[in-house]
Amino acid sequence: MAEPARENEGPLSEDDLIARYFRPLAGEGAFGLRDDAARLTPGAGMELVVTVDTLVAGVHFFADDPPGAIGRKALAVNVSDLAAKGATPRGFLLSAALPQDYAPAWLADFADGLKDAAEAFGCPLLGGDTVKTPGPLTLSVSAFGETPSGTMVHRFTARPGDRVVVTGTIGDAALGLLLRTAPGASWTEALGVDGRVFLTDRYLHPRPRLAAIPALRRHASAAMDVSDGLAGDLAKMCGVSRVSAEIDLALVPLSDAAKAAIKADGALLDRALTGGDDYEILAAVPDAGLAPFLDAVDRAGVRASVIGSFVAGDGLPLFRDDGVEKRYASGSYSHF
Amino acid sequence: MAEPARENEGPLSEDDLIARYFRPLAGEGAFGLRDDAARLTPGAGMELVVTVDTLVAGVHFFADDPPGAIGRKALAVNVSDLAAKGATPRGFLLSAALPQDYAPAWLADFADGLKDAAEAFGCPLLGGDTVKTPGPLTLSVSAFGETPSGTMVHRFTARPGDRVVVTGTIGDAALGLLLRTAPGASWTEALGVDGRVFLTDRYLHPRPRLAAIPALRRHASAAMDVSDGLAGDLAKMCGVSRVSAEIDLALVPLSDAAKAAIKADGALLDRALTGGDDYEILAAVPDAGLAPFLDAVDRAGVRASVIGSFVAGDGLPLFRDDGVEKRYASGSYSHF
Repeated sequence: MAEPARENEGPLSEDDLIARYFRPLAGEGAFGLRDDAARLTPGAGMELVVTVDTLVAGVHFFADDPPGAIGRKALAVNVSDLAAKGATPRGFLLSAALPQDYAPAWLADFADGLKDAAEAFGCPLLGGDTVKTPGPLTLSVSAFGETPSGTMVHRFTARPGDRVVVTGTIGDAALGLLLRTAPGASWTEALGVDGRVFLTDRYLHPRPRLAAIPALRRHASAAMDVSDGLAGDLAKMCGVSRVSAEIDLALVPLSDAAKAAIKADGALLDRALTGGDDYEILAAVPDAGLAPFLDAVDRAGVRASVIGSFVAGDGLPLFRDDGVEKRYASGSYSHF
Repeated sequence: MAEPARENEGPLSEDDLIARYFRPLAGEGAFGLRDDAARLTPGAGMELVVTVDTLVAGVHFFADDPPGAIGRKALAVNVSDLAAKGATPRGFLLSAALPQDYAPAWLADFADGLKDAAEAFGCPLLGGDTVKTPGPLTLSVSAFGETPSGTMVHRFTARPGDRVVVTGTIGDAALGLLLRTAPGASWTEALGVDGRVFLTDRYLHPRPRLAAIPALRRHASAAMDVSDGLAGDLAKMCGVSRVSAEIDLALVPLSDAAKAAIKADGALLDRALTGGDDYEILAAVPDAGLAPFLDAVDRAGVRASVIGSFVAGDGLPLFRDDGVEKRYASGSYSHF
């Protein structure tokens, strides 16, 4: 828990701000944030996986989202990328461009959320840079993980015949976002309070699928996290792997809340498939490894569903639904 | 050289933008930017040093600075941090938050400058994230270097008796910035065209002191790069090392142009000592290593000057000038 801010004090220097809010998050190799760089040594026989994701207020989250949720999300979306590569989180660097009028109390809550996430994911702060911006709050996290040498799982290595597997449920966050932007839509009445709370939580609190890491390393041909919508991300994986895919829409895993929403408004199915922020894992798993993969993931407490197969070809993935066939031309919800 | 942009085409997708402008910069382990994370393996017996710096248009550079210079600077300021830690650059991640109205031609020139820097510093692009922002252009670079295990040079390890050593010349960039913001000031007449070009170049084109890396690893007790002004950065090093320092102002290395400027307007000496963007290296070197340190740096083509000594105590560094003693209370030019 960061030291509570005193509301009526003057603006903090960058050094004081770092000491107060970010030092409690610092891990081994960060030297208490007293150096201007950190040390990171992979374990024996391990190699590092590095990734970066940037979140801009008003683009990737709402400026008035709970600050703790923003802090957790900034790290979670990066740890989700690591998990999809089969990489165990080791640490992160934070770049925070703060608006001129940021409130110390906001920053305290943000840092608390970030600390919760760092602890939950085993991914401590290694260093960072804090600057002021005349623009919106902009958070960039570079995250580092490690895999036993040669076991990093790539995006571009799906092969024809591999099964298309996805963790968790799809579309919840996209519907949670709709609840936020269009709270009065008629379909929301079909949800009940529990359904609304569930979808909102799925939007605000991505939970990277760390439990799937060992199974991915061992059994997956390829994997990526689903952050820009299942349809678009599957198309990306197919494009870089030079394959296509055929999906049985009836097999795409949906939560009870998403099912209720789609039952009330059929058009929401497309939204669930193309909306962003799932932070589930999309994997290509060869038949030989399918049963052990599903078993390992299940034992780790994560649901995984086979939704189709990768096939030879270079077309967009085909989604079959009760005799109807669809391809999502620009299926990806792009944050860009 | 990135493929020239066609001015009259529509906006690029993020994938097309990355392929066109950033794929030419990608190094080994980046997998042609076709994955959503990169691999980075330190050499045998080496450990990684990681650092991040963020630059915001209008805060850290001018939005209308030459785009190639902005690209070079975004990487150079990070590589400067690595060099000061004794770390050989290995690669970087780029987060670029682009304004809505960015021009493809601007991005092409920016990427060219970044590519020049990546090649010059032996620091290829490993991955990145490109997003749109309603705010100013915001660039965040995470840079990775490596040192033989146990040889990382820290900021917080200066000891009483160590000499204070600085590379290159101090204050040029701060005066170059003044030339930009107050071009008509009377002192600028004392410079001549060559002097103005020199100071402007020093502001626009930081040159990280990679050549000093082996000597720093071998002989320095502590080091950091001078990015926020010599007086303030020395105070930082003293603070985290729990020492103080005594500096002989006559020994602080100044370029001919800076000398001419200060001769014309004596107040510019303080500006030179407290202004930012030097990107020189400030090192603590024990007496026993001083001669070999200076010799090694000199043979590597970098000038290094002994300007004083670290001393026991916890006060701000003391600057002596012809019988006058000064301490810079808030000596650091803070970008924050």
